[in-house]
Amino acid sequence: MSQHNIIDKKNISKFDQFYRANFVNSLSGFKSANLLGTKDKSGNTNLSVISSAFHLGAEPALIGFIIRPDTVPRHSLNNIRETKVCTLNHINDLIFKQAHHTSARYPKEVSEFLACDLQEEYIGGFYAPFVLESKIKMALELIREVKIEENGTHLLICTIEKVILPKECISNDGTIAIENCGTVTVSGLNTYHRTTTLERLKYAKPR
Amino acid sequence: MSQHNIIDKKNISKFDQFYRANFVNSLSGFKSANLLGTKDKSGNTNLSVISSAFHLGAEPALIGFIIRPDTVPRHSLNNIRETKVCTLNHINDLIFKQAHHTSARYPKEVSEFLACDLQEEYIGGFYAPFVLESKIKMALELIREVKIEENGTHLLICTIEKVILPKECISNDGTIAIENCGTVTVSGLNTYHRTTTLERLKYAKPR
Repeated sequence: MSQHNIIDKKNISKFDQFYRANFVNSLSGFKSANLLGTKDKSGNTNLSVISSAFHLGAEPALIGFIIRPDTVPRHSLNNIRETKVCTLNHINDLIFKQAHHTSARYPKEVSEFLACDLQEEYIGGFYAPFVLESKIKMALELIREVKIEENGTHLLICTIEKVILPKECISNDGTIAIENCGTVTVSGLNTYHRTTTLERLKYAKPR
Repeated sequence: MSQHNIIDKKNISKFDQFYRANFVNSLSGFKSANLLGTKDKSGNTNLSVISSAFHLGAEPALIGFIIRPDTVPRHSLNNIRETKVCTLNHINDLIFKQAHHTSARYPKEVSEFLACDLQEEYIGGFYAPFVLESKIKMALELIREVKIEENGTHLLICTIEKVILPKECISNDGTIAIENCGTVTVSGLNTYHRTTTLERLKYAKPR
């Protein structure tokens, strides 16, 4: 009766590698868009666009993100393992092009801050670099790394140590108006979007 | 010199519980907005809004999501443990109010499909119910559950078994135009947003 376009697991595994990456990366929905700032023990900084950061818990305040060991953000992973700290910086509509460019494969000795025209910022003595141009940013400390055996990726579980943001974007109930700070969202591998609020709904109760 | 509003870990832990939940849930950035469809062995269906689904890998095609054991989606967790399957259905701008309402604490014998005015749909013999009104939906199979000891939540790692979507929203390179399908995004606990594409950027190369 109804017309469904069904693509099954076998179809997906036969897709060309890039087609598959684009397709599967679109499936979970809109993704968070952050820059991951790190610095190795010798002081070399690294900056990497990351779309896998997700809320893991409010008490304690935890954020998780996925890093692939064998692709672009390898320097980030090594730096976090070495120093146990990193920063997460919201990508906004003024810097999304530079932010995306950090995904290019620069050699370790090149800092993506310099290569992609973004400024390092140090706040409150925290070792890892923040992104000056980002309006909402966090200092994170690694608690634990969970190996995802199914594909060799790593889930990094981090505590939120500090949050730096404009005070005026915090609502009376604690919600942060991230849309008003220009925070963007990503779909697939490389499409960036601005948002428009549909509605802020109430805490739901059975009716 | 520069004016930063710094909120540290101690400040966050002293926040009122609801203020803290709103605040910390805003920090990772925009979140995916999906409905998680499940059915227990006896045939009782459950539907739950979930904003923690994230891309975990393209080959094999994996999606991860976080479930709290002690809050709303407990029925979902039990059903997935029992049957090893679930569906993930993109929330679009026509159903976001009903979708959000599935987060109310209905007793187990009440199906959120009925209570929230969304229709069950069965496709290709898959046991778990899809949401008819959703345009992009997936059949998932549980591979593994990872306990997050830090806060008692559970990471569920699932394979994507089937994808059901309108063919016309798949671009030549595999990217799905989720914006054109009305897919929405969430910030904080309860703010829903539509998106507007800023730009689709190219695969980045060092310059």
